[in-house]
Amino acid sequence: MIKAAVLGSTGYAGIELVRLLSSHPEVEIKILGSQTFAGKKISEVYPNLVNVVDVVCTETDIDAAAACDVVFTALPHGASKAVIPALYEKGAKVIDLSGDFRYDDPKVYEQWYGEEHPRPDILAKSVYGLCELHRDEIKKTRLIGNPGCYTTCSILALAPLLHNKLVSTKNIIIDAKSGVTGAGRSLSLDVHFCECTENTKAYKVATHRHTSEIEQELGNIAGEEIILSFTPHLIPQKRGILSTCYANLNKEMSTQDVIDVFKEYYKNEYFIRVYENGLPETNHVAGSNFADIGAVVDKRLNRVIVVSAIDNLIKGAAGQAVQNMNIMFGLDETTGLKNAGFYL
Amino acid sequence: MIKAAVLGSTGYAGIELVRLLSSHPEVEIKILGSQTFAGKKISEVYPNLVNVVDVVCTETDIDAAAACDVVFTALPHGASKAVIPALYEKGAKVIDLSGDFRYDDPKVYEQWYGEEHPRPDILAKSVYGLCELHRDEIKKTRLIGNPGCYTTCSILALAPLLHNKLVSTKNIIIDAKSGVTGAGRSLSLDVHFCECTENTKAYKVATHRHTSEIEQELGNIAGEEIILSFTPHLIPQKRGILSTCYANLNKEMSTQDVIDVFKEYYKNEYFIRVYENGLPETNHVAGSNFADIGAVVDKRLNRVIVVSAIDNLIKGAAGQAVQNMNIMFGLDETTGLKNAGFYL
Amino acid sequence: MIKAAVLGSTGYAGIELVRLLSSHPEVEIKILGSQTFAGKKISEVYPNLVNVVDVVCTETDIDAAAACDVVFTALPHGASKAVIPALYEKGAKVIDLSGDFRYDDPKVYEQWYGEEHPRPDILAKSVYGLCELHRDEIKKTRLIGNPGCYTTCSILALAPLLHNKLVSTKNIIIDAKSGVTGAGRSLSLDVHFCECTENTKAYKVATHRHTSEIEQELGNIAGEEIILSFTPHLIPQKRGILSTCYANLNKEMSTQDVIDVFKEYYKNEYFIRVYENGLPETNHVAGSNFADIGAVVDKRLNRVIVVSAIDNLIKGAAGQAVQNMNIMFGLDETTGLKNAGFYL
Amino acid sequence: MIKAAVLGSTGYAGIELVRLLSSHPEVEIKILGSQTFAGKKISEVYPNLVNVVDVVCTETDIDAAAACDVVFTALPHGASKAVIPALYEKGAKVIDLSGDFRYDDPKVYEQWYGEEHPRPDILAKSVYGLCELHRDEIKKTRLIGNPGCYTTCSILALAPLLHNKLVSTKNIIIDAKSGVTGAGRSLSLDVHFCECTENTKAYKVATHRHTSEIEQELGNIAGEEIILSFTPHLIPQKRGILSTCYANLNKEMSTQDVIDVFKEYYKNEYFIRVYENGLPETNHVAGSNFADIGAVVDKRLNRVIVVSAIDNLIKGAAGQAVQNMNIMFGLDETTGLKNAGFYL
Repeated sequence: MIKAAVLGSTGYAGIELVRLLSSHPEVEIKILGSQTFAGKKISEVYPNLVNVVDVVCTETDIDAAAACDVVFTALPHGASKAVIPALYEKGAKVIDLSGDFRYDDPKVYEQWYGEEHPRPDILAKSVYGLCELHRDEIKKTRLIGNPGCYTTCSILALAPLLHNKLVSTKNIIIDAKSGVTGAGRSLSLDVHFCECTENTKAYKVATHRHTSEIEQELGNIAGEEIILSFTPHLIPQKRGILSTCYANLNKEMSTQDVIDVFKEYYKNEYFIRVYENGLPETNHVAGSNFADIGAVVDKRLNRVIVVSAIDNLIKGAAGQAVQNMNIMFGLDETTGLKNAGFYL
Repeated sequence: MIKAAVLGSTGYAGIELVRLLSSHPEVEIKILGSQTFAGKKISEVYPNLVNVVDVVCTETDIDAAAACDVVFTALPHGASKAVIPALYEKGAKVIDLSGDFRYDDPKVYEQWYGEEHPRPDILAKSVYGLCELHRDEIKKTRLIGNPGCYTTCSILALAPLLHNKLVSTKNIIIDAKSGVTGAGRSLSLDVHFCECTENTKAYKVATHRHTSEIEQELGNIAGEEIILSFTPHLIPQKRGILSTCYANLNKEMSTQDVIDVFKEYYKNEYFIRVYENGLPETNHVAGSNFADIGAVVDKRLNRVIVVSAIDNLIKGAAGQAVQNMNIMFGLDETTGLKNAGFYL
Repeated sequence: MIKAAVLGSTGYAGIELVRLLSSHPEVEIKILGSQTFAGKKISEVYPNLVNVVDVVCTETDIDAAAACDVVFTALPHGASKAVIPALYEKGAKVIDLSGDFRYDDPKVYEQWYGEEHPRPDILAKSVYGLCELHRDEIKKTRLIGNPGCYTTCSILALAPLLHNKLVSTKNIIIDAKSGVTGAGRSLSLDVHFCECTENTKAYKVATHRHTSEIEQELGNIAGEEIILSFTPHLIPQKRGILSTCYANLNKEMSTQDVIDVFKEYYKNEYFIRVYENGLPETNHVAGSNFADIGAVVDKRLNRVIVVSAIDNLIKGAAGQAVQNMNIMFGLDETTGLKNAGFYL
Repeated sequence: MIKAAVLGSTGYAGIELVRLLSSHPEVEIKILGSQTFAGKKISEVYPNLVNVVDVVCTETDIDAAAACDVVFTALPHGASKAVIPALYEKGAKVIDLSGDFRYDDPKVYEQWYGEEHPRPDILAKSVYGLCELHRDEIKKTRLIGNPGCYTTCSILALAPLLHNKLVSTKNIIIDAKSGVTGAGRSLSLDVHFCECTENTKAYKVATHRHTSEIEQELGNIAGEEIILSFTPHLIPQKRGILSTCYANLNKEMSTQDVIDVFKEYYKNEYFIRVYENGLPETNHVAGSNFADIGAVVDKRLNRVIVVSAIDNLIKGAAGQAVQNMNIMFGLDETTGLKNAGFYL
């Protein structure tokens, strides 16, 4: 059994990780860190876990965590920076769900986070944990920068087209819609039920940090710098991201041609489902680790519209973290993740 | 492996059963019956199932179904009546999710369903599949009348009090609130998003059929006839039932006294979670097979208010059906059902 | 034109009042008090008001407020206590939306609010502003204790039966469901979208303060003390309260008999709509000042179930406050309140 | 008083029109047409209207309707085609909410609706009723093609930029999100609560008919043909459209520069609210006739992102119809439409 620690276990990404790990056949949850709820059972904080996970939360203890086989960090931005170098240097395998260890270049981090990266040396060791793109590196690393939710959904939607140089790298536009769990458990008027329900809005237009992750990864695939528009929206539902991606085709292609490209590119990927007909919707993936992708070519404009959907808490956070763990530990990549979504 | 057939697999109870069976370690789904979608893969009807369950739906074939180890029937009211006698007589183990085989007395069926029971002989063989109350009979039967959702939630909330003769059998009132999946997949203005969301209503006041199931079971426990008020409400959410139950105490008791009674009564039940503090909410159980119960005594009135919550699709339908199957086949009762709810 | 001040204008009850007053033909909004947003336009806080109400919020100024023709106080509990005596003594007409001036007997206040009433002398001058029950007193007073939302909905549902001595005063049970605006704009995990949506719960069982208001008013109508069960629930919608009320009939009556009693009792009331057929739902009243009432008699139990619905922000708060103002100033009671609800 | 007929009064656009007309000070509702509910009071179909509008619905009677001062047609697609020529030829003033009379060129209609336009002669008389763009023509016509909801929201967001030739006419992308009332009252699985709530999806990608209206109007403003991407999405809320519009600037401009252009262009428009700070959200406009617009320039790409929001049932349908009526009858354009949105 893999002994696992989850630091930051009572935020929304953390608790989803706990839920997934609780039914993972090869994992034993050893440590649940929580500054706020130390001393309480996790099932007192989340009563759905009673009889399933009744571990008592503890304050951050680096030594105890590093003694586990794997440490997941789902800490607020900034907090992980302080903890991860220590864990890493003690030899732990670390999967970090924050933005701190996702960059090839510390300068990009600096530009989007408005501060110097504290440990570029350790950043250099980390692997960007988008499993389908970096599987081989993930196998060998001890530090994963687990990708953002918007990022995963958007990169998967465009990678095959850029890899095959089928679209212009100019005029790529990603219009993404996210459920409210993406905003986390912290209180603010933005997540007050009465301000959220029956409401849709764009936010952080042209400035959202996930833009930089998307540009990094798609640039690597395209072999050239990519600058694109990414617009996040908040929609009145709990789970799910839908990315609607626009790109101009370099040559005439039909909808079927594009779908065939996706089918080929992802032919060995269990968690990527390419649609022959129709388009993904967020409730096709809610509750599962799948990323669903469909496409339509607008013949009038020779433009492709790719629509992708994931569950932001699973393939966009906790599920991908487990998938990364599976890869790192040589397990079947789908272990503990093979369940269908809820749909209802 | 237990070979399973699900007839009526594309309704909401049916598809939830398919979802649960797909991750059950001892079950192989052999037959998915659907009159509407025969010839299509179940995953074309419910895209969340792609790569998980891609079985092709078939029209009802009694022989083929009866050749399976267990047949679940989740057919519309009336349809199961026609199919189940045939299945039963061919020797199948049948778990029926309709109301047709839930009664001790065909007269009660007649009174609430407005028609004679077509097969009182087979009704006499059936066992009411509320696992926690009828476990021993379930072990020995080949025909389960799987309880209604409101019923399960309400009976579990009152059984310990009536068993111990702690409350008056007069003036029992059950005020229940259900999510919209309880209304099924059929189209009607009542389930139109724009008529449902931001709306709460009572319906079938004093006439809902589940009343008769509740009265039958509680009457059996109390050892006397019980007539009570049961009021169902539709609330704007997908899953979940909350029953708020009122009963007058026969003697002075504190809240803690009542909780202790529940704790004792359900001490061996994995799926019943009695609250020491606080009260159940529907999202504590959404996605799981748990039934959560809490209670408050109103000292001013010497009245107890019991609040219980289940996921109507799971403990109220598909999960309980699986639990019944586990019992019937001698498996650990929690097999395939031990996951925590979603909460988020 | 009536010059109006609203103190506490940026909470949910306050802003609904501003919205209603903005389209009232006889009112000019002079002062919008807000400790938090003083110096900002109200339309900066609530952008829906741009071009409609662009008044700048100010800190509480008793003299300025008292110089208006009417002062509405929609302050947090406790804050109104401090302000209202000063306003009242300066001669203002005051309509208070808090619980502080709703009681006949300061002892009852003490019992439910856990503190002595600070100004029993002024409490003695106040009138309970449930318009349909206290119209004549409202005409003559300068201080209104505007009723609670649950209270209004529940009292109106039971008054005709108690007035006519048709039901037992024992075993009255009110099971009420409220939208989340009832919890106000303050931040807490309870109103986080992800904790609220897809969730229903009971809260403050047997201890909610509105119980005491209901008991006071129904006791006055019945001419005897009434102690009853009142259970509030939070449901995942913004607006609306549904009260499901249970009472045992003193003699045999049919559903039609009961409806006739309601029709007669409310025959001159524009805002009370008694249902000949069917039952109220919250979206029948959302957005309007109506209180809708329907009833069913359960012949088996000789028990009546009355279902009533209001918009908690309107008939349950701001609309009733305007109705009270109309009465106090001798206007047609429906002025500014005659619009239909949104339904959609 | 203007005598008004509404044909198709019980669909969602129709009933919203009835609601708005019921509080319009210059209108008397004379005829409410409904094939389905003829003989019933409108308030039996929509109980929110009891005591406000209790008119009895009637079957379509062209002569009776044409005898009114204005006829609103909110009929299903196809039905209006049959009725409007007759009404028009009898001399009625007609405001049609369908797509049948919105086109300059019958060929465009043919292309997007897949059938010949039945009456190009009458189409030639109609005016596109986007009030802010066609006010002078509206004053003089007897036939209005009231714009689509997506259309209104999107055209208003781009008109100032194209009018001033500030953006390229290539690479315009409109990504729009609509509440479910936009899908109307007809039953389909798409609008089943359980399929809709907690779900977001794109639909009719590259083929939605509103694309052609947007291209027509923006092409007229730009003075050149425009072909653009328009992608509609269904989001789990009742009301509201949010359009996120992307266009490449022809020269360097700041966010403030763009906002100033919008401010200037709409400086005399009461119903257009340009944001100096922040961006519109759908609940800023829900319940009102306002169209809210904000913009951000992405300096890295010299691209402008314009976000606009309307209530699809009001400015996107019934409210704009009333605004058109006000213009046609020489009333103050804001009559009956000056209320603030609900926000809550």
